[in-house]
Amino acid sequence: MAASTSVPIGVFDSGVGGLTVLRALRAALPAEDFIYLGDTARLPYGTKSAGTVSRYAIQAADALAARGVKCLVVACNTAASVAIPVLAARLAPMPVIGVIEPGAEAAVQVTRHGHVAVIATEGTVRGGAYPLAIAGIAARVTTTQRACPLFVSLAEEGWTDGPIAEAIARRYLEPLFRTPSAPDTLLLGCTHFPALIAPIRRVTGPAVTIVDSAETTARATAARLVQLGLARRAGIGSVKLLATDGPERFARVGSIFSGEPIAPDEVELLDL
Amino acid sequence: MAASTSVPIGVFDSGVGGLTVLRALRAALPAEDFIYLGDTARLPYGTKSAGTVSRYAIQAADALAARGVKCLVVACNTAASVAIPVLAARLAPMPVIGVIEPGAEAAVQVTRHGHVAVIATEGTVRGGAYPLAIAGIAARVTTTQRACPLFVSLAEEGWTDGPIAEAIARRYLEPLFRTPSAPDTLLLGCTHFPALIAPIRRVTGPAVTIVDSAETTARATAARLVQLGLARRAGIGSVKLLATDGPERFARVGSIFSGEPIAPDEVELLDL
Repeated sequence: MAASTSVPIGVFDSGVGGLTVLRALRAALPAEDFIYLGDTARLPYGTKSAGTVSRYAIQAADALAARGVKCLVVACNTAASVAIPVLAARLAPMPVIGVIEPGAEAAVQVTRHGHVAVIATEGTVRGGAYPLAIAGIAARVTTTQRACPLFVSLAEEGWTDGPIAEAIARRYLEPLFRTPSAPDTLLLGCTHFPALIAPIRRVTGPAVTIVDSAETTARATAARLVQLGLARRAGIGSVKLLATDGPERFARVGSIFSGEPIAPDEVELLDL
Repeated sequence: MAASTSVPIGVFDSGVGGLTVLRALRAALPAEDFIYLGDTARLPYGTKSAGTVSRYAIQAADALAARGVKCLVVACNTAASVAIPVLAARLAPMPVIGVIEPGAEAAVQVTRHGHVAVIATEGTVRGGAYPLAIAGIAARVTTTQRACPLFVSLAEEGWTDGPIAEAIARRYLEPLFRTPSAPDTLLLGCTHFPALIAPIRRVTGPAVTIVDSAETTARATAARLVQLGLARRAGIGSVKLLATDGPERFARVGSIFSGEPIAPDEVELLDL
């Protein structure tokens, strides 16, 4: 089936964090329809093995492809870090865009001294996709990684600022930034982390550039759709939300990430 | 197939927290063999809906039953709070023991003024199994619940004491205990929480009795096996560890809960 400009863009995440990417995509591509699938029954992906995450990502991608999408955006850093090649091969010729490459490109562009820190889940750090992508773009750039798993539950609990969030940010980040050769750029390699920007910023200080891959992924998606003649030119797009578990929790926690309230009855339950 | 004293006891948990229950079971029943299954691919259960948790619990119970067990202990509070009736019906006449009833009985026995606080995951709190079980044993006992989801990730990160753990414990527990009619007993309704006993104790103060359902569940299991003539009388039992994902992470995080080091090659991967 040939892709048509009129069909929606599929966005996949392990849960609700990818709603930050969806928000950036809607801002960049206001005429497009979106189907967002959050695999809330099996989140988090960040603590799971590459094999399990790949298997879940394939099931999610197949479900979105079956509903008819013209493009797949993998908003989950953990899934993107392990499953982009397998998803691209499976869905070809449909374009598959992950958050890793656009995030790596943005970090390389803004780093002044060639030292980028990446904070992410355990799974993303273990897979090493960001250091690999950054080295592939600019071999002279050094990448330092740190897994920050508690940031995920902190953001989901809605404790996005205050003394607890700041103490956790200090414990994770001070060892990275309180050194003579500290990174000048911090790449937020998990879609949950932009919610914690305030305490993160207080630890890094103003001299560190913080890069969030949501906007660069949205720009990369828009560019690819235009290049392939798949972009919609006019109209006002819609959003369809799917979750594999707990529409109530999806709506409540998702509102933290999407920037606007979500009602539970807007979320359709999907069994993968 | 008639159960025999010689077959193992199955223990099921969403992950590694149930190893605290396994440790208590081994102390109470040193002659028994155990098969422990941690559903690490799909953890945590605490944020998931009752329907999804029941489905996962049934798959795990079936996998243990297929390997041949004489008894099933559901160590995961969230799974026990929703799935004990369906598991008991499915596996009958095999005895199925959850952590809820023994924990509720212990709390009722120790409360002095009839006010018990239960801290647990979102799923356990939402299901209301502890208030129901406590009211069923002693109608005059008041139960106050509080979901403490960050305790789970804090324990898994190994940050079990120090200023961050204490600040989080204060934020969750001070509203419960800084009131004139404060509870005199605190029931730890999640297998992860005993790891955080030190900061929890500093917030409650020494006058509050803390109840952990691991030991009471072990005693209830031993009593049931003796009653049914299924207890093994002599010998030194073994432990078989199964996980649905990530043997390395299971070994690393599991060592926090089991009280002894676990090597990754002791953990067998099982696909559910």
